[in-house]
Amino acid sequence: MQEFKILEKVIPLLSQSGNIAIGPGDDCAAIEFSDGDYLLAGTDQMVCGLHYFPDVDPERIGAKLLKRNLSDIASMGGSPICALLSLATTNSKLKWFERFFQGLEQEARSWGVSVCGGDLSGLPAGNLRETMSLTILGRVARDKICLRRNARSGDFLYATGCFGNSLTSEHHLEFIPRLPEGQFLAETGVRAMIDVSDGLLVDASRMAVASQVALRLDPDLIPLRPGADISGALGDGEDYELLFAVPPNLAETVEQNWKFTTRLTRIGIFEEGAGVIGRDGGNLLKDRNTGYEHQFA
Amino acid sequence: MQEFKILEKVIPLLSQSGNIAIGPGDDCAAIEFSDGDYLLAGTDQMVCGLHYFPDVDPERIGAKLLKRNLSDIASMGGSPICALLSLATTNSKLKWFERFFQGLEQEARSWGVSVCGGDLSGLPAGNLRETMSLTILGRVARDKICLRRNARSGDFLYATGCFGNSLTSEHHLEFIPRLPEGQFLAETGVRAMIDVSDGLLVDASRMAVASQVALRLDPDLIPLRPGADISGALGDGEDYELLFAVPPNLAETVEQNWKFTTRLTRIGIFEEGAGVIGRDGGNLLKDRNTGYEHQFA
Repeated sequence: MQEFKILEKVIPLLSQSGNIAIGPGDDCAAIEFSDGDYLLAGTDQMVCGLHYFPDVDPERIGAKLLKRNLSDIASMGGSPICALLSLATTNSKLKWFERFFQGLEQEARSWGVSVCGGDLSGLPAGNLRETMSLTILGRVARDKICLRRNARSGDFLYATGCFGNSLTSEHHLEFIPRLPEGQFLAETGVRAMIDVSDGLLVDASRMAVASQVALRLDPDLIPLRPGADISGALGDGEDYELLFAVPPNLAETVEQNWKFTTRLTRIGIFEEGAGVIGRDGGNLLKDRNTGYEHQFA
Repeated sequence: MQEFKILEKVIPLLSQSGNIAIGPGDDCAAIEFSDGDYLLAGTDQMVCGLHYFPDVDPERIGAKLLKRNLSDIASMGGSPICALLSLATTNSKLKWFERFFQGLEQEARSWGVSVCGGDLSGLPAGNLRETMSLTILGRVARDKICLRRNARSGDFLYATGCFGNSLTSEHHLEFIPRLPEGQFLAETGVRAMIDVSDGLLVDASRMAVASQVALRLDPDLIPLRPGADISGALGDGEDYELLFAVPPNLAETVEQNWKFTTRLTRIGIFEEGAGVIGRDGGNLLKDRNTGYEHQFA
């Protein structure tokens, strides 16, 4: 299934009321609920055998499901509030559920998030053990929201952390959502951000396309996770790092006030035009695996 | 799998922050997002082969998924705002998706709801065609929220509509969420309500248990859907009607101001004690199929 083609067809069918400030197409939707902050809402699912192997500890599965969603709040510059879970399963082992919920709850509590509701269902007996979906709700000040469409020609592209080899290194289970970093960036004046779930190149390209600019990217500058090569760093996915655009006059402020142990690296610059361009002027997206194309908020 | 036993174990693991006014255990969670209305959030999923047959028109599947969730907003006395969808599927027919989203969107638009985000994923090839989850967001004035725990001894139990035979009659696809009725009741002063998704007896019992009262129910008073008998009306499920408790001094106001074509029937009375008691004093829940036990918000 080519999710991209499906979304291209169905997203235009969805009309948005005036109270939906940001509809489908970013990491979260933003809703005008009151006069104050935007309400952020995002949803992200995991399927056993696709997003994790069945033998992974249930605690880590529960934690990963939440963390993927927290990463979407982080990239909007927001703070998470609460989460709702849907779980459909053929599993009947009470111990598995307890461990799954313990992992989910421990992660939630560490971020001040309440798992405030959900739905549990059976599945027809068969080859799929379980599938799960989580909706995260959060908030962000209206004038500080970060969107993938806000990059401008002349902005530098920065990245948090390292890239590639997420699966073998178990980074896809062990990552820490970049919430404090995202909030710092939003406070500091950054307005264009995305999280890297489907691969650096694909997600950077989404930012360029949404902002109607080109991106000149230097692959040699991308920090590599141990065991990763440049190709993996560009394409592997599940890095859950932040990519963000910084106007030149803000770059020094961001770099000097960066108080985190998380690595901060300038890896490219946005310019007039279209596409993602390498150092040699070639189109980096051409002939590459463009990763997973399934999320619409 | 006995969902009830699982929920009994896992819900106590979930700690709720002070901004969660209503956590797991009602039809929606209620969140203090701003000084004004509560933010309502509920989630409900459907699995192909369990909640609908694979040959059902995709438009009706999309509409049903939304309507089930709208019914949860109705029972809180609330108004819906927007929805997020998760869909995991082996289906690759573009036409199916278009029709599914058309059905979802048409229903959403008719209630002023925006489908503002979601997530689309594949499934491992196998016996399950698709599974889907929807999160509904809405609002309700803080002093008008209706909860299943608010019934008091002496209150009458009323029901909207008819009960039983939902599957064969296709009511489970064709029902209309009782949103205007729920809002009217909340405005009029009703504070105890639940929607009937898992069967009248089970859901009425949940209200009695949550309110720590007994319910004396007269099965002969329950309006039957064509083709239904009393047993089906008590146990079939998927009625998506509202059950609500009305204090005696409010009953005349509710009945006289009921402006809907939807049937309104008094079917019981809450009293001191526990359990659901029939006209003859017997325990109606004993030896009955207690329906589906899977939702925790």
